[in-house]
This record gives sequence, C-alpha cells and structure tokens, in this order.
Amino acid sequence: MNPEAWQERLGVYLVLGIDNAGGRSALETVRLAIEGGVDVVQLREKKAPLRRVLEVGRKMRELCREHDVLFVVNDRVDVAMLLDADGVHVGQDDLPAGEARKLIGDHMFIGVSASSVAEARWAIEQGADYLGVGAIYATGSKADAGDPVTPALIGEIRKFSALPIVGIGGITAENCAEVMEQGANGVAVISAIVGQPDPKQATVRLKQAVAPFIGK
Amino acid sequence: MNPEAWQERLGVYLVLGIDNAGGRSALETVRLAIEGGVDVVQLREKKAPLRRVLEVGRKMRELCREHDVLFVVNDRVDVAMLLDADGVHVGQDDLPAGEARKLIGDHMFIGVSASSVAEARWAIEQGADYLGVGAIYATGSKADAGDPVTPALIGEIRKFSALPIVGIGGITAENCAEVMEQGANGVAVISAIVGQPDPKQATVRLKQAVAPFIGK
Repeated sequence: MNPEAWQERLGVYLVLGIDNAGGRSALETVRLAIEGGVDVVQLREKKAPLRRVLEVGRKMRELCREHDVLFVVNDRVDVAMLLDADGVHVGQDDLPAGEARKLIGDHMFIGVSASSVAEARWAIEQGADYLGVGAIYATGSKADAGDPVTPALIGEIRKFSALPIVGIGGITAENCAEVMEQGANGVAVISAIVGQPDPKQATVRLKQAVAPFIGK
Repeated sequence: MNPEAWQERLGVYLVLGIDNAGGRSALETVRLAIEGGVDVVQLREKKAPLRRVLEVGRKMRELCREHDVLFVVNDRVDVAMLLDADGVHVGQDDLPAGEARKLIGDHMFIGVSASSVAEARWAIEQGADYLGVGAIYATGSKADAGDPVTPALIGEIRKFSALPIVGIGGITAENCAEVMEQGANGVAVISAIVGQPDPKQATVRLKQAVAPFIGK
C-alpha cells in the first residue's frame, strides 16, 4: 500500500457490527454512509456467531468494493482474510501487528489502536500502517474504551510519527475539527452515523467537517 | 492427514488455557501430562491478550513437538497458523470448518464441537476431520456447555459416521469407559488433569482407562 494514497482516504471512517441499529440493517447503514461519501468501513463484531459475521461481512465487503470504499475487519485476521478485506484493525490485546503481518504480508494494511504515546510507539515498532487513537472523547459505544485521551494525544504522536492517524471515540461533526487540527488524517465514528435518523446526511456533514484538513 | 493414524492418537486429549491452575503454570501442567502419556494438547484461551497467548502458546507448541504430541488451537485459525499447530478446533459459533479449510488447506486438521446429531451432521458436511462431542456430563470447566448430552449421543453419531470422535465434558478416569464404549476414539478433559494434585498420574490413569478401547 502506498502511504501517500492512504492519507487521502481515511477522512470519514465508519465502524459497525452486523446487527440492526436505529431501525435499519447494518448493510443499509453502510449503503447510506457510502452514498454520503464514507471513506472506510470497519466491521467490528465481537459477539455474533462467525458464520453470520461472514455472511453479512461478505455483503458489506461487496458493497464497499463496488463503490471503491476501503473495507477493514476488526481483531480477527482469519476473518479479514476470508472476507478479502483491504485492511485489518487490531487493538492492544489482539494479535500484534508484527504477528498479523506474518499472515497477510502486504496484501492488507494493518491499523492498530493506541490510547497513549507508549502504545503508539509499540504499534509503530510492530509495523502498523496507521493508528487509531482514542478514545478521544467519552463514548457510550465502547464500554472498555477507558478514560478519554483528548485530541492532544494525536498532536503528541504527530511529533514523532508521520503515520496516518484516525481519531476515534465520541467524535461528531461538531467536534471533529479539533481532532483534525492536531494532525489526524481522519475520524472514526460509530454513533455519529449508526442509528442517526439520516446516516447519509450524517456522513455528508462529517465529510464537510473534515474536508478542510484533508491533504494538507 | 491420514485418518487411520489419527484414530490411534486421540486417546487422552488435554484442553487448557495459559494461566496457572492448581498452583502450577500451564506449561508445567503440559509437561506433566506429556510425561503421563497425553496424546493431544489443545490450547483454549478466550480471555488473555493474544500477545501472551502467542508467548505461552509457542512454548507449549515446542514442548508438544519435542515429544510428538499433537498440538491444537481452539477457535482462532489465525493463532493456530502463527503457532504452526497440528490442528484447529472450532465450536458451532466459531469459523465453520469449511471456511477454516480455505485458510489452512491440508496443513492442519480441523475438529468441530457438536452437542447434537444435527450439529454433528453439519460439522461433517463442512469437512470436519474429527468431532468433539459434549458436554457428555455436567461440567464446571465450561460455563456455556449446556445440558449434558450423555455418552449415548456418541453412539448415535457413530451409526452414520466413522469420523474420529472425542467425548468432552465432565469425563474422568472413572466414567470414561462408558464414553469409549459408545465408539469414541478418545476423551478430552480439563479438570481431570489440570489442577489435579498429580497431573502426570492423573494422565496415566486416563490412559489406562481408555487403552482397552483404542485401535479396536
């Protein structure tokens, strides 16, 4: 993967599971987010039987492929391989990036979650292709996200690394400018798109809010 | 894998995680079980950070290799690949055997858990190499094991399948004959070895109890 091409393509990064939310299916949410211009879709599903994850995931993957949207799988490298994902995203307790790399080589990019400078440094040492930094703000979408790190952590990491960074955790169209101002290349959201009355319009608003910072 | 060679090598099948139990490390338990003649070691770890699972798992894998004991990883095909396991064991909610096969080909064998005739038939259709049938008896080792299926389920499955079968769930040296009598090729245990005052002797007793049924 070409890192330059990358930084242009992480602007609005949707994270979601396979279950219905806000009265619509996950696939419908993805479809609407794509219409709104979403850049990346990450499938993060921790509970459902994997045969269902594969079933819904394959449809999600096709939708993304048809519209040239990046498709990422959270945690499970095996599932990412079966879904022919563009990337895999691992947390600090998941497979380390260096181990994941042994399985996927350069066929996929690897994102790593970091909630501190130390975690970011470790992820970079392990060969991460981008960092997911957060939780930036308090969030109800991820129970184990810990205390918010504030947007300043992105600025701290930016001082020693040029790696693409996506902020995550409680980010909305209203507060994402302060995340991007710290040097982020994009914002990852769950609630700001999933379960919104109009996910397409919600995505459009996020796109507009990050646009001034993209490619800078 | 040669199925004939297989059925001879599933007699006593130890399942354990990476944490200490009974005042000794998981590796020490594996070492003692190997001294007692254990045939298979399955690493089943659902909670620990994967970097720790890999760290302990690699040592466990080496111990097994040195003593020609089969090494199996539960659930995660990606971890099984990284640990160069002999096999992977999947539950009904894990990756289906047919999907796992796409990733590992014939490099590993695949075991599938079944707690009913329907689940066994599905596993066989999916290309399972052996079945783990249970929980045979009530067990405290696996909270989600459901109601015991009794040894008779193994006999039911044996009527339509010659696939190797390992009984699991509440099996001890005292009750394993009735599991083997139904046509099982081996018994999988946690508590009957892990945390026993003398895991080596516990393994020897299990080996002696299943021996009359092996290769019949």
